[in-house]
Amino acid sequence: MSSDARSNDASTFLVALKAIVGERYVLTDAVDTALFLTDHRGRYHGKALAVVRPASTDEVAKLVKACAEAGIAIVPQGGNTGLCGGATPLEPRPTVVLRLDRMNRIRAVSPAEETITVEAGCILADIQGAAAKEGLLFPLSLGAEGSCQIGGNISTNAGGIAVLRYGNMRQLVLGLEVVLADGTVLDGLRRLRKDNAGYDLKQLFIGAEGTLGVVTAATLKLFPAIRSRAITMMQLDSVEDALTLFARARAVFGERISSFEIIGSSYMDFVLRYVPGTVMPFAQKSPWYLLIEAGDSQLDAPLAAAMEGFLADAFEAGLISDATIASSLAQEEAIWKLRHGVTGEFKLAGKTMSHDTSVPVAEQPAFVTRVEEGVLKAYPDANVMMVGHIGDGNIHVVVLFPHERFAGSEDFEAASDAIDVIIDDVAMELGGSITAEHGVGTTYRKRLARTKNPAELVVMRQIKAMLDPENRMNPGKLFLPDTAA
Amino acid sequence: MSSDARSNDASTFLVALKAIVGERYVLTDAVDTALFLTDHRGRYHGKALAVVRPASTDEVAKLVKACAEAGIAIVPQGGNTGLCGGATPLEPRPTVVLRLDRMNRIRAVSPAEETITVEAGCILADIQGAAAKEGLLFPLSLGAEGSCQIGGNISTNAGGIAVLRYGNMRQLVLGLEVVLADGTVLDGLRRLRKDNAGYDLKQLFIGAEGTLGVVTAATLKLFPAIRSRAITMMQLDSVEDALTLFARARAVFGERISSFEIIGSSYMDFVLRYVPGTVMPFAQKSPWYLLIEAGDSQLDAPLAAAMEGFLADAFEAGLISDATIASSLAQEEAIWKLRHGVTGEFKLAGKTMSHDTSVPVAEQPAFVTRVEEGVLKAYPDANVMMVGHIGDGNIHVVVLFPHERFAGSEDFEAASDAIDVIIDDVAMELGGSITAEHGVGTTYRKRLARTKNPAELVVMRQIKAMLDPENRMNPGKLFLPDTAA
Repeated sequence: MSSDARSNDASTFLVALKAIVGERYVLTDAVDTALFLTDHRGRYHGKALAVVRPASTDEVAKLVKACAEAGIAIVPQGGNTGLCGGATPLEPRPTVVLRLDRMNRIRAVSPAEETITVEAGCILADIQGAAAKEGLLFPLSLGAEGSCQIGGNISTNAGGIAVLRYGNMRQLVLGLEVVLADGTVLDGLRRLRKDNAGYDLKQLFIGAEGTLGVVTAATLKLFPAIRSRAITMMQLDSVEDALTLFARARAVFGERISSFEIIGSSYMDFVLRYVPGTVMPFAQKSPWYLLIEAGDSQLDAPLAAAMEGFLADAFEAGLISDATIASSLAQEEAIWKLRHGVTGEFKLAGKTMSHDTSVPVAEQPAFVTRVEEGVLKAYPDANVMMVGHIGDGNIHVVVLFPHERFAGSEDFEAASDAIDVIIDDVAMELGGSITAEHGVGTTYRKRLARTKNPAELVVMRQIKAMLDPENRMNPGKLFLPDTAA
Repeated sequence: MSSDARSNDASTFLVALKAIVGERYVLTDAVDTALFLTDHRGRYHGKALAVVRPASTDEVAKLVKACAEAGIAIVPQGGNTGLCGGATPLEPRPTVVLRLDRMNRIRAVSPAEETITVEAGCILADIQGAAAKEGLLFPLSLGAEGSCQIGGNISTNAGGIAVLRYGNMRQLVLGLEVVLADGTVLDGLRRLRKDNAGYDLKQLFIGAEGTLGVVTAATLKLFPAIRSRAITMMQLDSVEDALTLFARARAVFGERISSFEIIGSSYMDFVLRYVPGTVMPFAQKSPWYLLIEAGDSQLDAPLAAAMEGFLADAFEAGLISDATIASSLAQEEAIWKLRHGVTGEFKLAGKTMSHDTSVPVAEQPAFVTRVEEGVLKAYPDANVMMVGHIGDGNIHVVVLFPHERFAGSEDFEAASDAIDVIIDDVAMELGGSITAEHGVGTTYRKRLARTKNPAELVVMRQIKAMLDPENRMNPGKLFLPDTAA
């Protein structure tokens, strides 16, 4: 085909899209699309025929059908806050970015049912807010909650800081509306707590990163609001001690613990240096810091007293060396600030390689020791920082090098790959996962292909081929190009 | 093929099976197999070449491979306690029943991780017991727990009396080991709380009723044991009031409520008459009875006091007319006995038609009213009994007729079908499901085909064709024969 014919085809196609969503919602100018063609970390820069912004499920269905007829690929995009390049159009083929941001209606909230039905483009914080207005809680909480969208949270099976108590995104979805690759609307938007009428199709699309269809709406579980809270940070010597404290905390607080987070010494140093407004709450340093949040739906539940007792026992047992309990909202926020998202600040500090590994909870001491040893043996000048959700077995390893450490990006990529292998091998030996909550996207494809067991990869490819036989739904994600359907 | 050749083939095949599991574990005599060829309710009577009892995943894989090579169908069977004929071989083709009962090893319990890894044939009560020995709780609980097997619980996504707090079976599975139709072992037996490395394949097999593969082992979530408890039963006038009480109870007790169960007047009468040892705890009758169980992992949590306050407020608001709080284990059991499984006793009372509908929680008043009106309009002599998990939106409707009501089984089936349509239509209009927790099996196939939305049925059939292209895994279940893959 001549390039003229191709551009004619493309312009006919764009006219069709404009007829569906209206001219102003088909963006083609670089100045309008730039933000949506680059990933959150600024690592990937893509290309698309257009960024299209539908306002309804019906429009999405029509757009997807038009793309199916024209053989155009689709990259669904929510808040574009993902960390793995899962929403950037990177394949060398005609592609449309489907931004769901205009589908931001909260369709219904039912306090009696503790459910909320939302469109895919709703911002997570807005959903939290709508629940709070009814005296209820939507528990998903993560760094990007002010801008990430629920469709993206669902498509990446988002985790965050309350997984221990409430599960990850998958556990919070009751019903799902999805547009399939051919434009069929799969209406599974049920508000049911129990439904065994056939295969649970929604599970296919949760965590599928847009490779099997476009999530357009969901019915989510709500929970009683938390009315009493105790937040504490303590200093301790080892991950083993952290696990002992975890068992003790579960015995005292049961399911009231929503967060059980660990921070390694060098990560704490990094935060104190680079994140404005952070203050060390202790007189001295220690190898590890632990943050516990416990909450109760009852007003005036005696959590602070229980926490004091818990800490006194921990001192006595020699498990911790110092501790602080927040006694005001400001103090709670100050403690959380030491733990919360610092992705942006990494760039100031140097060249970083971030990981999102999970291992079985009890294997974390081995994981931490072996990863640190392995990386330092290969790269003695690395700063191996650790921070994570120790209650979930999900420790993020961030390896930091000085800005000038690598001659060029090839050197950096080679080192990054080598460190991936070191960390992934430890994770696999311990029965872990290379990606606990971030997903695979573009960044982790090679590592997934190397570590996933072959029988599982075969079934994954079968599913992809079944629901997206032309490989047009977010192509090139999850699977390496040469292994895709 | 002559019948001699066929029987030769069959005997060669049986020799192959015996070589895998040992002669004594390939049952072919009617006296040995009868129990396993009839369903729990005695409604279905099947036929099989053999009932085979493997002892390991490796043996299951070899058996399934042998069946694949010989073109033999497989019906996996756990405790055979299902209520929908999902584990009975009913297709007119050579079939093997795969009983998992010898695979009853608890492979590992980790208190530190709050996980347990079990083989498919473990009896539910044994898993509960193994957790309790470590001071932990495995929360799945249902009438048949003394004999049902966890593989069956997983394959039917079992519900029960603690779904409100802990979710159904699906929410309790961390990892799954499955043997696929060609004998491939899909080893997803991970002990991870978070794992976003690709599609979550285990979800396909949970609730698939053995139609996509054989579940051989699972890693399950455990929870802190319940150390304080309050159980109460109250009398009330309406389902609306029950929902008001539900909202109030959630506000007072939050997630501490594990069971919120409703019993209709005629069901209560039935229980008191037919279930030995049951005693009415109130002086008078009332239209509805509500059972609430709240639990706390803390010892001496002031639940009884809170329950007394809750009941006092409910009296004052005119929501209940009488109430009793259990003050001993015996009283707790006496209250639960009024609610618990009476499947066997139905046969004494007459001809029954049981349903397992769910609707959105807030739609239950409409559901109850419209079902009762609809059934009584068509069958004025019916006794419409209701009992269920009102906190989950799952009300079991049991329609009872005198023994002599129908001239023959055809009459009974015709009435049963007509009543299904009445109830299912109400459920569909309210956004419900025809089977909340029992599954589809054989019994509910026709109703599923009639009520499930066509787009979802298409994807269900695609999944079946993808994982079981020869339709050998529990064929004839879920899908009506002429619509199966």
